[in-house]
Amino acid sequence: MNQPAGRPHAASQSLPEPSRTPSEGLHCSHFMYRFRRDVLAGLSARRLRDGMRQFLAAVDPAEATRPEKLQRYIISGHKADFALMMMDADPLKIDAVHQAVVSGPLGAAVEATWSFVSMSEISEYVPSVPQYREKLIREGNAPDSPELAAKVAAYERRLPMMNQQRLSPDIPDWPAACFYPMNKSRVPGANWFMESSSLRQTLMAEHAQSGMAFAGRVSQLITVGVGLDDWEWMVTLWGRNPEHLKEIVYRMRFDQASAKYGEFGPFYVGYSATGEEILDHCRINV
Amino acid sequence: MNQPAGRPHAASQSLPEPSRTPSEGLHCSHFMYRFRRDVLAGLSARRLRDGMRQFLAAVDPAEATRPEKLQRYIISGHKADFALMMMDADPLKIDAVHQAVVSGPLGAAVEATWSFVSMSEISEYVPSVPQYREKLIREGNAPDSPELAAKVAAYERRLPMMNQQRLSPDIPDWPAACFYPMNKSRVPGANWFMESSSLRQTLMAEHAQSGMAFAGRVSQLITVGVGLDDWEWMVTLWGRNPEHLKEIVYRMRFDQASAKYGEFGPFYVGYSATGEEILDHCRINV
Amino acid sequence: MNQPAGRPHAASQSLPEPSRTPSEGLHCSHFMYRFRRDVLAGLSARRLRDGMRQFLAAVDPAEATRPEKLQRYIISGHKADFALMMMDADPLKIDAVHQAVVSGPLGAAVEATWSFVSMSEISEYVPSVPQYREKLIREGNAPDSPELAAKVAAYERRLPMMNQQRLSPDIPDWPAACFYPMNKSRVPGANWFMESSSLRQTLMAEHAQSGMAFAGRVSQLITVGVGLDDWEWMVTLWGRNPEHLKEIVYRMRFDQASAKYGEFGPFYVGYSATGEEILDHCRINV
Amino acid sequence: MNQPAGRPHAASQSLPEPSRTPSEGLHCSHFMYRFRRDVLAGLSARRLRDGMRQFLAAVDPAEATRPEKLQRYIISGHKADFALMMMDADPLKIDAVHQAVVSGPLGAAVEATWSFVSMSEISEYVPSVPQYREKLIREGNAPDSPELAAKVAAYERRLPMMNQQRLSPDIPDWPAACFYPMNKSRVPGANWFMESSSLRQTLMAEHAQSGMAFAGRVSQLITVGVGLDDWEWMVTLWGRNPEHLKEIVYRMRFDQASAKYGEFGPFYVGYSATGEEILDHCRINV
Amino acid sequence: MNQPAGRPHAASQSLPEPSRTPSEGLHCSHFMYRFRRDVLAGLSARRLRDGMRQFLAAVDPAEATRPEKLQRYIISGHKADFALMMMDADPLKIDAVHQAVVSGPLGAAVEATWSFVSMSEISEYVPSVPQYREKLIREGNAPDSPELAAKVAAYERRLPMMNQQRLSPDIPDWPAACFYPMNKSRVPGANWFMESSSLRQTLMAEHAQSGMAFAGRVSQLITVGVGLDDWEWMVTLWGRNPEHLKEIVYRMRFDQASAKYGEFGPFYVGYSATGEEILDHCRINV
Repeated sequence: MNQPAGRPHAASQSLPEPSRTPSEGLHCSHFMYRFRRDVLAGLSARRLRDGMRQFLAAVDPAEATRPEKLQRYIISGHKADFALMMMDADPLKIDAVHQAVVSGPLGAAVEATWSFVSMSEISEYVPSVPQYREKLIREGNAPDSPELAAKVAAYERRLPMMNQQRLSPDIPDWPAACFYPMNKSRVPGANWFMESSSLRQTLMAEHAQSGMAFAGRVSQLITVGVGLDDWEWMVTLWGRNPEHLKEIVYRMRFDQASAKYGEFGPFYVGYSATGEEILDHCRINV
Repeated sequence: MNQPAGRPHAASQSLPEPSRTPSEGLHCSHFMYRFRRDVLAGLSARRLRDGMRQFLAAVDPAEATRPEKLQRYIISGHKADFALMMMDADPLKIDAVHQAVVSGPLGAAVEATWSFVSMSEISEYVPSVPQYREKLIREGNAPDSPELAAKVAAYERRLPMMNQQRLSPDIPDWPAACFYPMNKSRVPGANWFMESSSLRQTLMAEHAQSGMAFAGRVSQLITVGVGLDDWEWMVTLWGRNPEHLKEIVYRMRFDQASAKYGEFGPFYVGYSATGEEILDHCRINV
Repeated sequence: MNQPAGRPHAASQSLPEPSRTPSEGLHCSHFMYRFRRDVLAGLSARRLRDGMRQFLAAVDPAEATRPEKLQRYIISGHKADFALMMMDADPLKIDAVHQAVVSGPLGAAVEATWSFVSMSEISEYVPSVPQYREKLIREGNAPDSPELAAKVAAYERRLPMMNQQRLSPDIPDWPAACFYPMNKSRVPGANWFMESSSLRQTLMAEHAQSGMAFAGRVSQLITVGVGLDDWEWMVTLWGRNPEHLKEIVYRMRFDQASAKYGEFGPFYVGYSATGEEILDHCRINV
Repeated sequence: MNQPAGRPHAASQSLPEPSRTPSEGLHCSHFMYRFRRDVLAGLSARRLRDGMRQFLAAVDPAEATRPEKLQRYIISGHKADFALMMMDADPLKIDAVHQAVVSGPLGAAVEATWSFVSMSEISEYVPSVPQYREKLIREGNAPDSPELAAKVAAYERRLPMMNQQRLSPDIPDWPAACFYPMNKSRVPGANWFMESSSLRQTLMAEHAQSGMAFAGRVSQLITVGVGLDDWEWMVTLWGRNPEHLKEIVYRMRFDQASAKYGEFGPFYVGYSATGEEILDHCRINV
Repeated sequence: MNQPAGRPHAASQSLPEPSRTPSEGLHCSHFMYRFRRDVLAGLSARRLRDGMRQFLAAVDPAEATRPEKLQRYIISGHKADFALMMMDADPLKIDAVHQAVVSGPLGAAVEATWSFVSMSEISEYVPSVPQYREKLIREGNAPDSPELAAKVAAYERRLPMMNQQRLSPDIPDWPAACFYPMNKSRVPGANWFMESSSLRQTLMAEHAQSGMAFAGRVSQLITVGVGLDDWEWMVTLWGRNPEHLKEIVYRMRFDQASAKYGEFGPFYVGYSATGEEILDHCRINV
């Protein structure tokens, strides 16, 4: 292994100040939790009551300690009872919520069964305005036509909002969501990272097209885990109905970007809930 | 990753109301459980008696909280002591039964060792009436013959019942059942999702043919886990005799759809039981 | 997925009665167990004494509840302390012994670390009498020779005993045994289930030949896990000396049936023991 | 297996004294830890206070027992709460810190969830001065030019410092770090260890080039786990900002050395912290 | 599956008596252990003192119960705190030491985290004297030369000692050791068991050559796990210095026998220690 040892003492005139806050985008973490019923059974009524109060404060924190985004879900199946999804400029503000959930009298009965650490970013596959114009021309639009100009102008107006949605999404008020991490494969014969940039651009554009068919029924966020956690990307899908989650993932599996190159980790499906609803559903009560 | 960010604010005139209830089919969950004998050993006789009563109520719930389908099984081997298989329009009604099982005095001694979250649906591989007609013609039936017309008419009459069976099955009163999840492979050289639709149709029709040989001995349900859990499909087989479960799975393994493309998860075999029979078999008593 | 939904209501005139008892062969389960020393340390002398008595009764049950075959082994290494191997027509009779082992005062200190659920059967690769005759002719025996007739007659006499040994084996009184599950691979380039029946017959016959060299030193039983547990087959080898187990498995690994197509699960080696010897070896005493 | 049995009694005139101290480089270990909240909940205030004091002493040991390098991090996500990274000539001095962390009243509530054992070394891919000179000539520098001589002289001056950085790095005072182990693949079609030395040299030089683009933002250390732990190398990256860690790993994934041959283990991202900050963040307090 | 059912009742005139003792070689087990600090914390001073005494007796047993070889190591990293490596003609004598370690007051706080069960043997790849003579001739030695005769005679004198070292090794008095299991791969394109015997002989001879370069610095033992445990071979390397362990494994990874066909399990590195040193290092004291 002969990668550069770096130069910590290099001229730092143009270097940013050391910081945990990214220059663009937010830190993002997904946490899956299960209640340990054997530990719960040993709590006195008083400790349980205190624990429930602290739990509700932990999953719905006060302004000062509240991450920029914080979503709560009841999770189906045995892999988790509930989930938190959080985004903030400071990763430790996010992790502090996790620490609060596993602390206190109820925390001893909360087991984190899975998590994923990632960051939001604007993907390299989002076309710039000139790239978008070239794409339209390749698709048959006349270079000097007013139609082309109008489309490009519309894209230019839309792009900042779309990018903002990628960096810090507006989360729809829908009941269902699913979460899963993924890699692009690097096996001989299907190695995404050995493909040309243009092929990757084409495949990702096709993939985006598939997703557009679900506008209004599915909203999605792709965050990056490369260098931070065990998979390269984390996918969060919000669904107007859980059936749309099943449908979009099945439909996209036939896109070459997924069919040939996609490797998928664990899937979790959940339903938006308040802290009280989580406790109630899980029958945590005094 | 450049999939569309969705458009939560898109014109929603034609969009359904947000809901957890699918427009077609049911949610379906399989749960595998094991009793923790170390925890059981610490329960007082009184708590054990209370726990048994609550357990029996949990696995045989009253009308109001009872999912549309609820089956109970004793499971062979060490991976689980018992299983629940449930279907309902509301996923949280299903999960509420699970929460009831792991709650209460006995719940602390119940460990969920595996589960699978899926939904029932009508597969894309079920031929429509016109597709069925074309298939018969390809197989040599004369286009204008009364025989063809009769077969098509029969299929047309049978189809709604078959589809209903797929969405909300009548479960036979047989002693044995087995459960396993599966994927279609996407490895270079055997990538199901890169094959043409017609090849996939052909292979699935052959596969269906294999299954028909077991009519009256095996009944099956395929539910979809794509986007919801770690495998793409969940297979539930009910058997008149456990040997039929072994035979059908072995026989089908030689079908190209399985031999070349099938990837299988954990298998569980169990025997239909009441709550009392589960407790009795597992020697949970005061 | 479009496999037939079955027809639970099909004409059942020729169908057998629903049953857990196979029409041929026996259910077979292997259980691996480890004593939990932390739990043992907390047992009072009285509970330990009661637990030991119940343990001895569980692994050596009375006539009425005793499965047709029941073998006990001390297991080497840390994966298990002891094992049970059982066969019976009723799977719940087998599982009842397991439930007895993990119940009672000592049961809380017994952890089942692995198991395998299978059934005995006559393999499709056992030649019928006519197949055997044809094989001898292919090998050069003259069709009308008295030698051929004698060999065929001998096979015909031997076959029922051999098949009985496959369905319900006589277990030799030898000290050592090993246990492991296996699959036949389905990877591109080595897909057993895509090979022709005749190639599979040939490879299995060669494989059988390798095994015959160990007659008198190794006895074996192959049971089927397809549809019942996570591997397709379970192999049980009894050895006159543990070195024969190592030798036969090494020798057979070069057979094409294993070298190219075999996939192997966990291996366990053990030594025949009574319940008392298991407790004594594991230093469970008052 | 026929590897030489070694010759412990061979003439040892030229052999070094037996020792745990390498002739060059340092032992290096990474430890990931999680607090067990169920155990913590059972500690009395007094034991917790004692435990916290011992914990702080363990992660910030006195001169005599302090390894040459000792770094502490808060880890994001559920896989660990905190991490230690240590280097020393004596491996048992490193392991003694680990033993101190898991001992004492708080140690019972500390679970080591992952670790990696490695050693620092000068990679075979670091060009020697003559190799560096030849490389410059291949790149077009005139063999007798003063420019070439100057570059070679500069490299010669820089090399000892660079090597020292590889053996015993100066660790930058930056907030973020990530850790992950890796292998070079040996699958048919992408077998690093079957490639020629010159191809491997070329690919590693390209890879080094990618890393240099991050000088001042990322500093790295590659240590060797071959023969010592489950992966061949351990990568430690220190980042001025966590976004640089994500960026360098993503950027390098397209280098052939990674894209084709890299296999990656678990990733951990953390933030530099004192012992007090770790306890505070994890809400361990009386 | 159609492997022979064995013939337990075959004429046994030439068969050895049933026995656990191999006719050649020794049983060999490696055990990795970790102290459970949560259990330790609950032991009274008296039980801890008793437990320490019993632990020291268990890892340094009296003559009558002491296996022929018994080595103790402190293990680096979190996967184990200490290890035992034992060899004996009777496998239950080895397992009895393991049972003693996990029994008694301290045993409840000892968790076996890994083990490997194997047997020593003389590999099929050790050349016989005639094979060695032929090899020398192939390498250019004149068939009738006194040099050849001398080399062959030397090999003939050395061979019994070398074989004895393989069956029951003299273990060098060096500080470091590493342990790992391995398989030979059977994937399409790199299937060791499908290669010709002569290619395997050649590759193993090359591999042996690599090892000889480390004579005096590394001593090794290869034992066989085929049929006994989850990997085919177990490698034990003793090193004069831990850096030699890293170097030999790295060097050998480029041999075709490893590069193309080797599959490696978990690696453990440790340092020779007495029972007292293990307790002291792990801070087990009253």
